[in-house]
Amino acid sequence: MYGLIGQMFAAQGRREELIAVMCASVGEMPGCLSYVVARDPKSDDGVWVTEVWDSAESHKGSLAIPEVKATIEKAMPLIARFGEHFETEPVGGHGLA
Amino acid sequence: MYGLIGQMFAAQGRREELIAVMCASVGEMPGCLSYVVARDPKSDDGVWVTEVWDSAESHKGSLAIPEVKATIEKAMPLIARFGEHFETEPVGGHGLA
Repeated sequence: MYGLIGQMFAAQGRREELIAVMCASVGEMPGCLSYVVARDPKSDDGVWVTEVWDSAESHKGSLAIPEVKATIEKAMPLIARFGEHFETEPVGGHGLA
Repeated sequence: MYGLIGQMFAAQGRREELIAVMCASVGEMPGCLSYVVARDPKSDDGVWVTEVWDSAESHKGSLAIPEVKATIEKAMPLIARFGEHFETEPVGGHGLA
């Protein structure tokens, strides 16, 4: 499995809008086992995204899906900057769809 | 919802053992929506755990469950130190059991 833990900061006052965009198109992505969008309670604009994919290839492939590309296009103007970024290698657990 | 993103480092050479302990008892925790154990590909000993709970209270309550207490007791000697630690406020996504 392939995992990502990423942090980003919304443009001022646009966090809820960014989160709505990011949550809207989820679930149509082959190989996506988990995709969670969260507020960063330590900041007004921070967002965490944690992802689990069956493989790095599935993640890469998702970026070519028209709906995902459209989501990225909608999200980018709402993002001021990216923060933490970690790749992981998930092994197991609970809640992997 | 309440989320945790945590990193820990296993005692040298004990990572697989630590991961096995942490994966073994998962799924018996009321209010646990996601719990993913992952290797940190950037180090030989690093482990990431990402958790989503319906509430902070459910997470806190889980620490009193006998099976969870037993897991913590088994895991602690296998952990050399803790690394990154972030609390999150999950909003939505995919793979929340």
